Amino acid sequence: MTDLKEGVCLSAFWYSHEQCCWTSNQTTFADRDKCPQWQKWAELMTGHAEGAGAYVLNYFLYILWALLFSFLAVSLVRVFAPYACGSGIPEIKTILSGFIIRGYLGKWTLLIKTVTLVLAVSSGLSLGKEGPLVHVACCCGNLFCSLFSKYSKNEGKRREVLSAAAAAGVSVAFGAPIGGVLFSLEEVSYYFPLKTLWRSFFAALVAAFTLRSINPFGNSRLVLFYVEYHTPWYMAELVPFILLGVFGGLWGTLFIRANIAWCRRRKTTQLGKYPVLEVIIVTGITALLAYPNPYTRRSTSELISELFNDCGALESSQLCDYYNNPNMSRPVDDIPDRPAGPGVYNAMWQLTLALIFKIVITIFTFGMKIPSGLFIPSMAVGAIAGRIVGIAVEQMAYHHHDWIIFKNWCRPGADCVTPGLYAMVGAAACLGGVTRMTVSLVVIMFELTGGLEYIVPLMAAAVTSKWVADAFGKEGIYESHIQLNGYPYLDIRDEFTHRTLATDVMRPRRNDPLLAVLTQDSTTVEDVETLIKDTDYNGFPVVVSRESERLIGFVQRRDLTLAIKNARQKQDGVVSSSVVYFTEDAPQLPASNPQPLKLRRILNLSPFTVTDHTPMETVVDIFRKLGLRQCLVTRSGRLLGIITKKDVLRHMAQMMNQDPESIMFN
Amino acid sequence: MTDLKEGVCLSAFWYSHEQCCWTSNQTTFADRDKCPQWQKWAELMTGHAEGAGAYVLNYFLYILWALLFSFLAVSLVRVFAPYACGSGIPEIKTILSGFIIRGYLGKWTLLIKTVTLVLAVSSGLSLGKEGPLVHVACCCGNLFCSLFSKYSKNEGKRREVLSAAAAAGVSVAFGAPIGGVLFSLEEVSYYFPLKTLWRSFFAALVAAFTLRSINPFGNSRLVLFYVEYHTPWYMAELVPFILLGVFGGLWGTLFIRANIAWCRRRKTTQLGKYPVLEVIIVTGITALLAYPNPYTRRSTSELISELFNDCGALESSQLCDYYNNPNMSRPVDDIPDRPAGPGVYNAMWQLTLALIFKIVITIFTFGMKIPSGLFIPSMAVGAIAGRIVGIAVEQMAYHHHDWIIFKNWCRPGADCVTPGLYAMVGAAACLGGVTRMTVSLVVIMFELTGGLEYIVPLMAAAVTSKWVADAFGKEGIYESHIQLNGYPYLDIRDEFTHRTLATDVMRPRRNDPLLAVLTQDSTTVEDVETLIKDTDYNGFPVVVSRESERLIGFVQRRDLTLAIKNARQKQDGVVSSSVVYFTEDAPQLPASNPQPLKLRRILNLSPFTVTDHTPMETVVDIFRKLGLRQCLVTRSGRLLGIITKKDVLRHMAQMMNQDPESIMFN
Repeated sequence: MTDLKEGVCLSAFWYSHEQCCWTSNQTTFADRDKCPQWQKWAELMTGHAEGAGAYVLNYFLYILWALLFSFLAVSLVRVFAPYACGSGIPEIKTILSGFIIRGYLGKWTLLIKTVTLVLAVSSGLSLGKEGPLVHVACCCGNLFCSLFSKYSKNEGKRREVLSAAAAAGVSVAFGAPIGGVLFSLEEVSYYFPLKTLWRSFFAALVAAFTLRSINPFGNSRLVLFYVEYHTPWYMAELVPFILLGVFGGLWGTLFIRANIAWCRRRKTTQLGKYPVLEVIIVTGITALLAYPNPYTRRSTSELISELFNDCGALESSQLCDYYNNPNMSRPVDDIPDRPAGPGVYNAMWQLTLALIFKIVITIFTFGMKIPSGLFIPSMAVGAIAGRIVGIAVEQMAYHHHDWIIFKNWCRPGADCVTPGLYAMVGAAACLGGVTRMTVSLVVIMFELTGGLEYIVPLMAAAVTSKWVADAFGKEGIYESHIQLNGYPYLDIRDEFTHRTLATDVMRPRRNDPLLAVLTQDSTTVEDVETLIKDTDYNGFPVVVSRESERLIGFVQRRDLTLAIKNARQKQDGVVSSSVVYFTEDAPQLPASNPQPLKLRRILNLSPFTVTDHTPMETVVDIFRKLGLRQCLVTRSGRLLGIITKKDVLRHMAQMMNQDPESIMFN
Repeated sequence: MTDLKEGVCLSAFWYSHEQCCWTSNQTTFADRDKCPQWQKWAELMTGHAEGAGAYVLNYFLYILWALLFSFLAVSLVRVFAPYACGSGIPEIKTILSGFIIRGYLGKWTLLIKTVTLVLAVSSGLSLGKEGPLVHVACCCGNLFCSLFSKYSKNEGKRREVLSAAAAAGVSVAFGAPIGGVLFSLEEVSYYFPLKTLWRSFFAALVAAFTLRSINPFGNSRLVLFYVEYHTPWYMAELVPFILLGVFGGLWGTLFIRANIAWCRRRKTTQLGKYPVLEVIIVTGITALLAYPNPYTRRSTSELISELFNDCGALESSQLCDYYNNPNMSRPVDDIPDRPAGPGVYNAMWQLTLALIFKIVITIFTFGMKIPSGLFIPSMAVGAIAGRIVGIAVEQMAYHHHDWIIFKNWCRPGADCVTPGLYAMVGAAACLGGVTRMTVSLVVIMFELTGGLEYIVPLMAAAVTSKWVADAFGKEGIYESHIQLNGYPYLDIRDEFTHRTLATDVMRPRRNDPLLAVLTQDSTTVEDVETLIKDTDYNGFPVVVSRESERLIGFVQRRDLTLAIKNARQKQDGVVSSSVVYFTEDAPQLPASNPQPLKLRRILNLSPFTVTDHTPMETVVDIFRKLGLRQCLVTRSGRLLGIITKKDVLRHMAQMMNQDPESIMFN
C-alpha cells in the first residue's frame, strides 16, 4: 500500500514495487524505476513517464492517496475504537501497574488498530508500527486470557500474560525475540518476576518461529535490516560515536518537550476538537514536503535500510557514488577508501533537508488520533544524522591521512570508516534519547542488524544518549505521556527522597471529618447503609470500638453491599436495626432483639498497616513492591487513618511541584 | 601453562603452542605439531620426537605437571583462603539475598582465587573459569565498596554493586556483556531493580571495552568461539535440536543428582578430611585418562572451539576428513555435502570416549577444594554430543537423499547440515540443563559464537532442556549446592502455596515462655541488662505496658547495648534502677528517684507488622520483596509474637519435608 501511492504493478496490483521487480534483474536502488512491470500513475494514465506534467500528476496522486489512507484510518478509529489511537505503550505500562482501562485491550481495539495501523503506515506519515504492534499483541493476550478462568479472574496472572504478550509483540515487530523480552522487562512491565521472564521468552520464541515460517522479508532471516560490514571499528571512532550519543540525547529531550507541549495544547485548546481535520492537514503537509525529496518519499524502513548499508562495489545507490580506483585488483568486498562523488554530496544535502523535515514533522505526528509508533521515526532521524557524520568522518580521513587522529589506524588505501555503522549508532542513540532504554535498545539494535561485533559502539552511544537526555529530565516519552494524560502510574524508577512521614499523607487530615469506620459489634445495618450511601470509599476499616479504635480488619464496600443485600432478601429477621457482627461469635441476644448479621467471612483479617511514623519513602516502596491499593495507618495499635494509592500519587505530584489534581483515577 | 604440560616454546617459554607458532605458516590443527619452535618435552630432553619411549616420557611429564599445578592450587587454597574454592556462585546468590559471609569477598580470597584459578585450569581438570571469575569480580566490587562510605555502610547499595560486578565478571569471562547482565539478572541476583540493570549494563560495557583493548584472543573480536556457518538451518532440523535439548536436560539432572550425592558423601564421611589427597587423586586419574585421547588432552576451550567450527575446504582437522569431490568448481566456502572419511569415523569413536570420560569425571571434580567453574565442562559435554549427532544427521542426509525427511530441503550436492551448529545447540542444551538459565543462556551462546541467525534453534534447545530437567527437580546446580550447604536462601522462584497462617509460624509457640518485650515506661536499666544477657535475640519489641501489649516500636539489641553502655559511662545519675523511657517525654520524677534514661531516639517507630491471620503466602512474599529480617505479629493492635527470616526458612523447609535444622545461620 505504501508503494501504491507512487504507482502500480501491472502483473498484480497487490505487489509492492520490490516484489513486482523480483523477476527483473534491475533490482538495485538506482535501477528500480526501470522495471517494466512497475508503472507510475502518470505513465499508466497518460503514457508519459517523464516530463513536468507527469511529475505533477504523480505528485498530486501521491498526496491524494496519502490523504485517502489517513482519512480512512482516523475515521475508523473515531467511529469504532477510540482507544486504537497512539502507540498504546503508555497505557499498557499503566495497565500493568495495576490500573484498569475498560475496553483498552478489547476485540474492537484489536481489529481496528490492526486495520488502521496498515493505513496509517501506508499514508506516509512519520510514524512506525512497533508500539502499536505491542498494543495489538497485548489485545490478543487479553482476549486469550478471557478464555481461561484462571487468568480472567486473577488480575495479577492476567498482567503476567500481558507482559509476555508485549515481548511477543516486539519480537514480531522487529524480528528480535531477545530484544522483545528485554523491552518488556525494561520499558513496559511493572512487576516482572523470573517466572514471567521465562514465559515471555517462550512467547517470543514462538512469535519469532512463526515469523520465520511465514518468511515475510523473503530472505529466510529474522533480521529486518541485515547489514554486513567488512571492517572492524577503531578506538578513535568512539569520539564520533559518543558525539552521536550526545545528539541522540539532545534530540530526545527536544522531541519530548516539543511533543508534550503540542499535545498539551491539543488537550487544552480548540485544536483537540477536530482530530480528523488535524490528521488530514498533517498528512497533506507531510506528503507535500516529502515527495520532492527521494529520501523522504520512500517508506521510512527502506530509508533506514539504505542508510545502514555499507557501500559495496556493486551498490548503485546515490549514497555510494564514489570515485572508484580504476585499477581495481582487490576482491569485490574489500573497498579502499575513496573520494566522494557528486552523488554523495547531493545526497548529503537531501539528507540534511530530510533530517530537518523528520525532526519537525514527527513532533506533530506522534499523539494524533491514529495508531502511531515512535521507533521507526526516531531511528530514521538518528540514521540520517549518523550517515551524515559517517560520510564526513570518512572523507576527512581520506583527505587527511596525516592528521594525528587518523594516523594510527587509517592508512591510505585502507577501508577504515564505515558510514553505515555510524547510521546504526545514530539510530540507537536517538531511540535511546527518546525512550531511555539501555540494554533492550542494544539487543534490539543488534538483533535488527546482526551486528554483534558492534556492541561496544552501540553501548557507548546508548549510555551517552541516556546520560545527556536524563540531564534535562528523567522522563522518557512514555512516562511523559503518562503524566500528560494523568494516569495513576507509580513510576518504579523515581526515587522518593523526601522526608515526609505517613502521618503527613494519611487521611483524615487535621480538619477533615473523622475516618469512616465500622465497629466490630455495635453498628447496625442501617448505619452501614447510611455510610455506604454517604461515602464513596472502596472499603472501610473495622475496629473494636470507637473508644479503643484497635484495628480488626478491612471490609470491601463491594462485599458489604452485596452481603447486606443478600441478607435482606434471604435471611429472615435481618432488618435495619439488626446489629452487624464482625466478631468470631455473635453473642446470644434476647429474642426481642432483631436477628444479628454475621459478616466475619467478608472481613479481610490481614489488612496492611504501617505506623504513622513510617517514612513515606518506605510507604512508597511498599506500595510499589506489593502493588497495594490502600494501607491503614496505626499508632500503638490504634487506627489513625488510611493512605490510598491515590493519596500516594497526589503526595508525590505535590512533592515534585506538580498539580496533584491532574492525576486521573478509575 | 596448559600447553606447558606438553612441551615448551624455545623462543620464549611463556608462549603458548599457538602463540609460539604464529610466525610459522603451519598453524592449522593437523600441522600444529610440526612448528619447529615448539618442542615436546621428550624431544627437548632426549632429542627423539617419535617412538614409544618419547610417548611414555611425554605422558609421564604431562601427569607430573598436572599434579604439580593442582597440588599448588589446593595447597594455596587450604593455607591462605579456604573460601577461594568452588565456583562461588551459590555463595554469591546467598550473599545477594541478604546473608553475610565474612571474608567471602575479601582481598585474600581475591588474590588466592585468581592465582589458583590459573593453576586449576592449567592442571587439565574438567573445570572452567567462568563461575570463579564471577566470584573474583564480586571480590573486586566489594573491595571498591569499602573505599566509599556510601556503599560500605549500606548493605543494600553494596549488593547492587555486587550484582553489577557479577555482570562484569561474565562479561570478561565470555566476552559477552549483554549475556553477563542477563546472567546477573536471571541467575545471580536476588533483588534487581531497573537502576541496577542500567548500572550492570554500564559495568559490563566497560569490562567488554577493556577486554577488547587488551585483545587477549589476538583477533580484535570480543567473541570467544567465533564461528561462521554458510548455510541456514531448516525446519526439519528442529527435531534433532529438540532431541539435543532432551539430552541436555537429562544430563543436567543426572549431573546434579550424582554431584550432590558425591558432595554429601564428602561432607558426611571421612572423605572430606583429605581435600588435598582428593584433588591429587582426581587430577592423576584425569591426566592418566585424558592424555591418550587427543580430544581430552587439549584444553577444553580449544576442544569446544574445534567442535563448533564448520568444516571449510581448508580445514585440516581430523573432524573434517571428508572425501572431497575432485572436480571442485565452486568457491571455497560453498561445500557440497560429502561422505565422511576414515578420520571422521575415528574422531567419532574418540569423541564418544571423551563424552563418557567428561560426563563421569566432571561429577567428581565440581565441588573439590579448588576454584572450579561448570560452564566450560557442561558446554564440552553438550558440544561433543551435538557434534556426534550432527555428523550422524549429515551422513544420513548424504546417503539417503530420497528419505522423506530429507527430500524437501536437502538435495544432492547441497550443503544442508552443519555439524558445528549441532555442537553449539548441544552445548546450550547441556548448560541449560545444569543451570536452568533461559534468556541469558541464549544471549551468552550467541555472543560467544556470533551466531545471531540461530536464535530459534538455541531457544528451542534451551526451552526443551529446561522443561526436561525441571520435570525431574526444580533446582539447578547452584540452588542444589545452596541447599546442600544449608545457606539461608529464600528462593524467589519457589512458589509458597501452603495454607498456613502467620500464627502457625510466629514465636512464642503455645508452650514457649512469653515473648521478650520491653515496656515504654516501666522497665529499669537492670531489667534491660538482664534481658540482653539472658537472650540472644537481635532486637526487642517495645509495648505500651505488659497489660495492654500495644506495640510502640522495635529496638535493636546492638543499639540498646551501646546506649546503656554510653549512658552508664557518660550520663550522671543513670544507675541500675533508672527507668528506661521510650515515650516522647519522660515524666517529671521526684528528685529522689534515679535519673531516667530516654531512649526514644534508638526506637524504630515503624516496625513491620502483620496480623496473626495473614496467610504465610503473603508473609513469604513480603519477606522476599522487602528483604525483611523480622516482622511482628499483632491481633487487634496487640502484640502476639514475632516471625524472623529464620522462622520463615524453617517453616518452608518443614513444608517441603526437609529437615528444618539443616539451615545454617549467621
